[in-house]
Amino acid sequence: MIYSAQVKVMPHKELLDPQGKAVLGGLGNLGLCDVKDVRIGKNITLQVEAPSADEAMKIAEEAAQKLLANPVMEMFEIVINS
Amino acid sequence: MIYSAQVKVMPHKELLDPQGKAVLGGLGNLGLCDVKDVRIGKNITLQVEAPSADEAMKIAEEAAQKLLANPVMEMFEIVINS
Repeated sequence: MIYSAQVKVMPHKELLDPQGKAVLGGLGNLGLCDVKDVRIGKNITLQVEAPSADEAMKIAEEAAQKLLANPVMEMFEIVINS
Repeated sequence: MIYSAQVKVMPHKELLDPQGKAVLGGLGNLGLCDVKDVRIGKNITLQVEAPSADEAMKIAEEAAQKLLANPVMEMFEIVINS
């Protein structure tokens, strides 16, 4: 069966996010001053062929740890949908 | 009050996602052949100061339309958390 795994990769809270700061400045220039902070990460959708949702989660975790996220700078969350 | 708005920006389904295809190839090289498709988008967290969740949603939508998403190539979804 094909499961859809949503992998959300975000920079660690303790770290500066220069891309987010640049976007925050851009929003200010556009007059959207009510936005007080911006953080930018990745959203990755995997289509995983697996016999069960647990197995699909294991495959998505391995993919996230090995390739999708940099554990030094980023954290990830995975949600599996059938 | 400060609301947290999650803006998920993904490439349109009809369009090729070359970044996703490159990651799919990389996962295959790592032996993760059960991943059949990959699509990569952005996940943006905004901290929005607004009197109500509806108002925060309007501000986040304006930010997404004006700066965060390219409507020609990308679609976006917004979720507001208080």
